[in-house]
Amino acid sequence: MFLQQQRDLVEEALRTAIPGDWQVPDRLRDAMGYSLHAGGKRLRPIFVLTAAEAVAGHESAADRAMPFAVAVEMIHTYSLIHDDLPALDNDELRRGRPTNHMVHGEAMAILAGDGLLTHAFHVVTQAFRRGVPAERVVAVVEELSRYAGISGMVGGQTDDMFGEQGITSLDQLENIHLHKTSDLIAFSLRAGGHAAEADETQLHALSLFGRNVGLAFQIQDDILDVTGNETILGKPVHSDERQEKVTYPYLIGLEESRKRVARLTAEANEALLEARLAKPDRLLEIAEYMMSRDH
Amino acid sequence: MFLQQQRDLVEEALRTAIPGDWQVPDRLRDAMGYSLHAGGKRLRPIFVLTAAEAVAGHESAADRAMPFAVAVEMIHTYSLIHDDLPALDNDELRRGRPTNHMVHGEAMAILAGDGLLTHAFHVVTQAFRRGVPAERVVAVVEELSRYAGISGMVGGQTDDMFGEQGITSLDQLENIHLHKTSDLIAFSLRAGGHAAEADETQLHALSLFGRNVGLAFQIQDDILDVTGNETILGKPVHSDERQEKVTYPYLIGLEESRKRVARLTAEANEALLEARLAKPDRLLEIAEYMMSRDH
Repeated sequence: MFLQQQRDLVEEALRTAIPGDWQVPDRLRDAMGYSLHAGGKRLRPIFVLTAAEAVAGHESAADRAMPFAVAVEMIHTYSLIHDDLPALDNDELRRGRPTNHMVHGEAMAILAGDGLLTHAFHVVTQAFRRGVPAERVVAVVEELSRYAGISGMVGGQTDDMFGEQGITSLDQLENIHLHKTSDLIAFSLRAGGHAAEADETQLHALSLFGRNVGLAFQIQDDILDVTGNETILGKPVHSDERQEKVTYPYLIGLEESRKRVARLTAEANEALLEARLAKPDRLLEIAEYMMSRDH
Repeated sequence: MFLQQQRDLVEEALRTAIPGDWQVPDRLRDAMGYSLHAGGKRLRPIFVLTAAEAVAGHESAADRAMPFAVAVEMIHTYSLIHDDLPALDNDELRRGRPTNHMVHGEAMAILAGDGLLTHAFHVVTQAFRRGVPAERVVAVVEELSRYAGISGMVGGQTDDMFGEQGITSLDQLENIHLHKTSDLIAFSLRAGGHAAEADETQLHALSLFGRNVGLAFQIQDDILDVTGNETILGKPVHSDERQEKVTYPYLIGLEESRKRVARLTAEANEALLEARLAKPDRLLEIAEYMMSRDH
């Protein structure tokens, strides 16, 4: 299945993302690697590669997009490391393993996050060496720093940290998820588009698709926390309830949440089809897979 | 004096660096602003502007370089916020004011640092809109992420955190300062050079100048901690001794430290003069000023 193939390509690229001949303290290299090589769905980088293929119409476009794919996974990984810190979410486990600061200590976890965040931008520039025009690389830096930054992911995390007690409406919840999750997924799709030199209409459709799929993904996560099988899921269920987290099922019920996932997925697909990309099939497949996933 | 003029320009640019119409949580905006608008010498941004002028031969070059100047100050500021955190240096005061986490809390200080680091790259891309060629902007992103990253500043901070007990040689001490301080100063000079479309020889000379001036700056800091006047300095003296920090005066004595500052400054000037920049005077002036400063 192409998802597994792309995941393998991403894993390989991640392993060489920090050049062996760079003078990096071992301790820092280890702490970054601990979280970067911890598996995971690699959803964001797969979106980058698949969007590039969808726009270009052939698989080879993914090669030029790979630096963007690696970069977005580094950004995602840094955000998990920092979010897990004692001062923020204070989580001891992540994907069934001790969190970064539990193993490497708080100081190293902060520095490993800073290192991954900074290095992500270095990786982005390597697309220029693979033939992506400089103007497109500049656009990707601009968008990554916006979607991952103070009006995107970092802003979302701030609202999540300091606003949770006060979430009473769907609008507020959606706003946080838009910034915490959807922004980086929308970015992933646009970055793939830039690698394939997509035009404005195509980029806009990719953003919309990413925004909707990202929200659907988050709601599906909330649903699985209620209805999922702990073994298949690989993590404890009902944890949102225990942590008194405000979720979609909590606010609007399971049935409405499911309908919302289906509607967002349909809207995502519609946006994509309107843009008449060269080969949108695989993007549609991922959206379908994500909606029906059980883990 | 031109230093004061440039500092004023930098202050003004910093005030508008986070667009007012961006949706940024107030709390995050406040925490970033607390450290970003705390004054300081603004040495790095001034180096960016002055290097651009030196290469171009006219003051107007500084305008195109301003985004790089703002970006490097954001990176410097984020590094101070994170370094001061309880898990790292655990400092309660910075420039005579409570550190970021003392005022805004640890969670916000971490997020404010992440926000400034991410936004710095956004600001870099704005140079493209001011007429700097896209290839040069890509080069600046590549260099900023290297000098500020895992083989530069973040690497230096890691070594400093976990190696300090073991520093016994000048080489080790120099290596840490090279990465913690000189790297970002060398970057500042190169970034200014890129804004003025400097060639490889000029960029190399600017790097060397920055490396040497950066080291001299650090040694002068160590000297002032021993010999300085608390009122002029604006911070307590003898703090290195109290904290049992390994410094240049501790390792090689005051007299040798002073000689080293003079030699590094001479070498910096020499590197610069060899490159035959259009107008190197102000860079030489700053080097001279830094060597003889009493605060």
